[in-house]
Amino acid sequence: MTTSTTPAPIIVREVGLRDGLQSIATVLATERKLDWIEAAHAAGQREIEVGSFVPARHLPQMADTARVLAHARTLPGLKASVLIPNLRGAQAAIEGQAHLMLLPLSASHAHSLANLRRTPDEVVTEMARIRAERDASGSATLIEGGVGTAFGCTLQGEVRPGEVLRLMQALLDAGADQVSLADTVGYADPQAVMRLFEQALRLAGDRFCGGHFHDTRGLALANVHAAVGLGVRRFDASLAGIGGCPHAPGASGNAATEDLVFMLEAGVHDTGIDLPALLALRQQLVDWLPGETTHGSLWRAGLPRTFARASQGLATAVSQGRAQAHQPGRSTT
Amino acid sequence: MTTSTTPAPIIVREVGLRDGLQSIATVLATERKLDWIEAAHAAGQREIEVGSFVPARHLPQMADTARVLAHARTLPGLKASVLIPNLRGAQAAIEGQAHLMLLPLSASHAHSLANLRRTPDEVVTEMARIRAERDASGSATLIEGGVGTAFGCTLQGEVRPGEVLRLMQALLDAGADQVSLADTVGYADPQAVMRLFEQALRLAGDRFCGGHFHDTRGLALANVHAAVGLGVRRFDASLAGIGGCPHAPGASGNAATEDLVFMLEAGVHDTGIDLPALLALRQQLVDWLPGETTHGSLWRAGLPRTFARASQGLATAVSQGRAQAHQPGRSTT
Repeated sequence: MTTSTTPAPIIVREVGLRDGLQSIATVLATERKLDWIEAAHAAGQREIEVGSFVPARHLPQMADTARVLAHARTLPGLKASVLIPNLRGAQAAIEGQAHLMLLPLSASHAHSLANLRRTPDEVVTEMARIRAERDASGSATLIEGGVGTAFGCTLQGEVRPGEVLRLMQALLDAGADQVSLADTVGYADPQAVMRLFEQALRLAGDRFCGGHFHDTRGLALANVHAAVGLGVRRFDASLAGIGGCPHAPGASGNAATEDLVFMLEAGVHDTGIDLPALLALRQQLVDWLPGETTHGSLWRAGLPRTFARASQGLATAVSQGRAQAHQPGRSTT
Repeated sequence: MTTSTTPAPIIVREVGLRDGLQSIATVLATERKLDWIEAAHAAGQREIEVGSFVPARHLPQMADTARVLAHARTLPGLKASVLIPNLRGAQAAIEGQAHLMLLPLSASHAHSLANLRRTPDEVVTEMARIRAERDASGSATLIEGGVGTAFGCTLQGEVRPGEVLRLMQALLDAGADQVSLADTVGYADPQAVMRLFEQALRLAGDRFCGGHFHDTRGLALANVHAAVGLGVRRFDASLAGIGGCPHAPGASGNAATEDLVFMLEAGVHDTGIDLPALLALRQQLVDWLPGETTHGSLWRAGLPRTFARASQGLATAVSQGRAQAHQPGRSTT
C-alpha cells in the first residue's frame, strides 16, 4: 500500500454485457448491446467482455455473442474479450478473433461440479487443449485462466488459499497466457484480498492480471482498494452493478462500474474513462432494463463539486488525445 | 498498511441514534431508543452516541436526549457520548454525566456559517469556553473536537487539508481532549483518506481518535479500510445506514454499522460485536421505521458460510468473557 499521489493507470474491464446480462431475466436486444459497447467505448472504456460462447439453450441472453464480438472488433483500440466454458467455446472465440478469451475455473470442487460439471483439474486439462488449439490455429487470441470462488463458496464453504494457488499455477503450466482471481460469491474482505493477491502476484508475477469482485456484502470497492495497494491494475465491473447473486435474491452483482471508476479517478488513478459520459450511459441502460434491479451510489448523489472541476481538466486532456497525465491536485482534497 | 493477520481491536461507535435519527422524518419514541441501546449493548457495542443537546425546536427527534443518556449510563461498560453544538449543550452533557461530548466544527467556512451560524474560529473559541466549564465543574466528561467537511463541501467545494489541520490543532490548543475527522458530505476517497489521516495522526498522535464517513457515493467502507491501514481504531457508523444526505435525496447515510462490522471482523479485527445479534437488531429497527429508506448489503445476503463457523467460535469466546483473542484462521479464506 502506497500513500504516494503518483497516478497509476488502471483498467476497468466492463463485464456487464456478460456477467450482468447472463444473470437477469431480460434478454437485451443485440442492437442495444451494440449501442452499449459503442457508448462505453466513446466514454473511454477499452476492455469489454462482450459475451460468452456457451450453448444458446443454456443462456439465450448470450446467443448473439459472435455478432456482438464482430462489431466490438471494429472499434479502434477496444480489447474485446469473451468467456469460454470449454474447447468448443475457444474455437468460436478464435473464429471470431476475440482479443482475449477467459476460461473460468472454480477452485471450489463442489461449485465446479455443480456449475461446470467438471472437477477443477479437468478444467486445467481443458486449458491445455485450448492452448494447443490456439497455437495450431495461429490465432492471436490471448488466453486467460480465471480462478473463481477464490475466497470461499456457498456450497462448499471454505476454499483453501493453497488450493487456489495450486490451480492458478496449473493453469499457467497448462498454457494460460495470464491468470486472474474472482470472488464469485462475495465472500472476500480487504484483509483476505491482501493475503491472497500478494501470494498470487508472487506466484504469477506479470502474468497475474486482475481481480473480479462481487458486491454481495458491500465490500467490492474496499476489496479493489486493497488490491490496488498491492499494484493490481485491472478490475472487472458491471455498469449499474447489474447481475445480482443467484444465492442472494436482490443482492448486488459485480462492483458497479461507475462507482469503481469514481473511486479510482478521485484517487488520481487514470482509468481513461469520462465519468459524466459513463453516468449518462448508465441511465440509458437502466431505461433498457425496466423492472430489473440496479445498484450503485454515485448516480444518485452525483459527482462531488471538487471532482466536477477536475473532470473539466480531464475532458481537456481527452480532447488533446489524452496526452496529459492526470494531476495529483485534481483529487477531492 | 499492513498485511499482517494480527487482529487489532477496533471500536465501531454507533451514531444512528444521533446522526441517523436526526436526519429522518420519523420521531422514534424514547422507549424504542432505550430498546435500541440495550440491544446494541447486549450485542457488544460499547460506544454509542445517544443524542445531541440542541434546542428541541430545531430537532424534536433529539428532545429526549437527557433521558436517553441517563438510561445509557446504567449499562455496564457502555461509553455514552452526545453531540453538543455549544457551551449550553456542554452544560447539559456535564449535568447528564455523559462519558464524552463531541463539538463539531466545519472546516468549510460556508458550511460552518450555514449550519452553525459561526465561523470555524468562533467554534474554536467556544471549545475554550467548554473546556473551562468542564474543568471548573470537576466533570469527567471527555471533550472531542470533530472536524467536519474535511474532504470538501457541497456549498464551498474544495476544503484545503492545511485548513483542516490548522483547525484541528486549534481545537487541541483550545482544550479538546481528542479530535476526529468527518467526511460530512461523502466526498472522500481512500487515497484522500490516507493523505489527510496520515497528517492528522502526525499532528495529534494518540489524541487523534477516529473517522466518520458517509456512504453517499459508496466509498465509506473503502475509506475505513484505508484509515485502518494507518492504525486508526475508531469509526462511526449508523445501523442500517440510516440518515441519508440532505444534499442527495435517497442517498446513503453513514457507513452501515452491520456492513462495517462484517468487514472488520472478516478481516480478523476484533470489534467485540456479535453480528447475528446486530443483524436481528437491524431488522427490529427497520420495523420501527416504516417508510424510511434504509441501506446496507449484508442483511440481504447474510453472513458467508465460512464466517458463520467462525462466529460460533466468537460466541464461545464471548461466553467465556471474551478472554480469547480471535484466531486468524476464522477469516473467510
